[in-house]
Amino acid sequence: MPESTLTTSPKPRAAVLRMKEYHPPLGNRNGLRLDFNENTLECSPAVLRVLREIGSSDLTRYPEREPVERLVAEHLGLAAEQVLLTNGVDEAIHVLCETYLDAGDEILLPIPTYSMYEVYASATEAKVVGVQAAADFEFPLERLLNAVTPATKLIAIANPNSPTGKTATREQILKIVEHAPQAAVLVDEAYFHFFGNTVADLIGRFPNLLLARTFSKAYGLAGLRIGMLAGDVESVRWLRRVTSPYSVNSLALACLPAALDDKEYLDWYVREVLSARAELFSALEALKVPYWTSEANFVLVKIGAKHAQFVDQMRQRGILLRDRSSDPGCNGCVRITVGTGAQMMTAVEALIESLDEIGWNATAQQEKDATT
Amino acid sequence: MPESTLTTSPKPRAAVLRMKEYHPPLGNRNGLRLDFNENTLECSPAVLRVLREIGSSDLTRYPEREPVERLVAEHLGLAAEQVLLTNGVDEAIHVLCETYLDAGDEILLPIPTYSMYEVYASATEAKVVGVQAAADFEFPLERLLNAVTPATKLIAIANPNSPTGKTATREQILKIVEHAPQAAVLVDEAYFHFFGNTVADLIGRFPNLLLARTFSKAYGLAGLRIGMLAGDVESVRWLRRVTSPYSVNSLALACLPAALDDKEYLDWYVREVLSARAELFSALEALKVPYWTSEANFVLVKIGAKHAQFVDQMRQRGILLRDRSSDPGCNGCVRITVGTGAQMMTAVEALIESLDEIGWNATAQQEKDATT
Repeated sequence: MPESTLTTSPKPRAAVLRMKEYHPPLGNRNGLRLDFNENTLECSPAVLRVLREIGSSDLTRYPEREPVERLVAEHLGLAAEQVLLTNGVDEAIHVLCETYLDAGDEILLPIPTYSMYEVYASATEAKVVGVQAAADFEFPLERLLNAVTPATKLIAIANPNSPTGKTATREQILKIVEHAPQAAVLVDEAYFHFFGNTVADLIGRFPNLLLARTFSKAYGLAGLRIGMLAGDVESVRWLRRVTSPYSVNSLALACLPAALDDKEYLDWYVREVLSARAELFSALEALKVPYWTSEANFVLVKIGAKHAQFVDQMRQRGILLRDRSSDPGCNGCVRITVGTGAQMMTAVEALIESLDEIGWNATAQQEKDATT
Repeated sequence: MPESTLTTSPKPRAAVLRMKEYHPPLGNRNGLRLDFNENTLECSPAVLRVLREIGSSDLTRYPEREPVERLVAEHLGLAAEQVLLTNGVDEAIHVLCETYLDAGDEILLPIPTYSMYEVYASATEAKVVGVQAAADFEFPLERLLNAVTPATKLIAIANPNSPTGKTATREQILKIVEHAPQAAVLVDEAYFHFFGNTVADLIGRFPNLLLARTFSKAYGLAGLRIGMLAGDVESVRWLRRVTSPYSVNSLALACLPAALDDKEYLDWYVREVLSARAELFSALEALKVPYWTSEANFVLVKIGAKHAQFVDQMRQRGILLRDRSSDPGCNGCVRITVGTGAQMMTAVEALIESLDEIGWNATAQQEKDATT
């Protein structure tokens, strides 16, 4: 058996050596999944009917995305040339960073925000500039405008933002778009359906505005991996260059039209979450757990020093939450995905017990005393 | 309605402006698909049985790849840490280029070869160095060794190669691996099953050797998008950094174990193709159509000046082929995917008619006269 005399593997690029790693806690997700902001129930039954009709010869063909891109574009009132389907929004972010970020460039991120912007930006030679959210995680418009320089090439705004559920107004977004014409401004509307406001109608009117949407959240198709980018025709042409024509799989493409068509299911699920979110807010108030009003299908709560024990107690009761304590400005915070009314009643019961286990009242009082 | 006063979209990176585009001719693929080297029949029926059992709540979850990575690693006799599943081999190539290629670096490609190496390499700042194949498309070992410089950071060897079906020997690969310790050497075994030789057993023994495999070809799962990279533990750790943990979809992950298990189906399909390939060689000889002996599920034939008309005539008869005439050194060449025996009998009938339509005998004779 031949054997090399070398002991080290070839060095990757310096950026890769420096790069931030992303290891989401995906193992053993048995229980009520309130940890990844997925649809907690199921996708439209119409999607499953399509899946049942897939034949074994269908799987042998490379995916053909164009017909579905046309359909999605139509759904958003856009031209097909303005839309690029992606392998989840993660691929959209990857492609955006690769398209726009060179050595010497800067990407602006209001923080805290979705981790993958920084992960993919850190694979480039560009500088990542984080702009801390205002008090109560409000959108830091002024600080963001002040941080724009001629080197700013990409600005990523998750709207609503994660993990806070906070939003930027249309006017705030427009101010940034107009203030940074040299930069691609991404508005990531992954949680659009729980919020209701969009800048989709501005696509093509502002050549530096880009929109991301996903089918992983409200539509309940996280497993299929379908996201999308929309922008002006020229930008989408650049983005398409660095994207494999086969990056979205055939089953995703087959199922997407049925998901788009079943507006009734989508509306039902969104109403269910909005009503459950309101009930969760009330429960948190009754329990005196500080939280931030959210426009998405999750709520960030402040547990304080015992955040990890709290998450563990919830897990012991079959409820998975996401500890966001190490996100910038989120010390002691935990994120709770909002599912259906029934699921959230179960969650609130577990929450009461878990708070009790970690001695919540005492802790909360101490922390309150310490800060006043 | 607000409107921007800007008329141009933000400039992408210079590399993206220079980048080679890849637009495979995917539209209207009705007919016998002998154009993309897919499995021309179907995947294992066991895969479909798994697909039938997927529930609508399964689709809501983000994919969890680790258990399937362990399984694939085991199948190849490797450790889980040596294997990275990818969204088709295209993602593998993308990730490799992004991991290793910096400004000032070089990637070596024996050409002609699979287009995506150059596409993704051209998105980086590295220089793409093509090394033309020897006579009859034989592997250009000496020229490749001579082209290695200290700046060589990636060498991509498709084995068998596309569109020629030619191969490199294990000894030739080892010479390159040892001659370029500073470079990651990718051996892309997309067509392994039709060839039978592999370097999988050398993974981990040579820290700069990387292996790619796909489930899009013999396994018949091109629509699902599953490829993989294997390498030494450290290399795979770097590659994993620039890969989204969700890039392989849940249905692909659910189906893959069934595909791996059904060795009987795979062996049957491969035997069918090998026997049909031998028959196609005989038919081409009888028709005096020049071709290159291939170790893959496709055959490159030399049609000459009327290559486009030939492909069109075949299309009119319901047979899709791939014109490779613009590949380096492939002037007048067309690639024919090999399917089952019955499919190839149909293809040969259409081939005889199409050659007749383009006046093959006369043309071939003229070209022969011109070159002798």
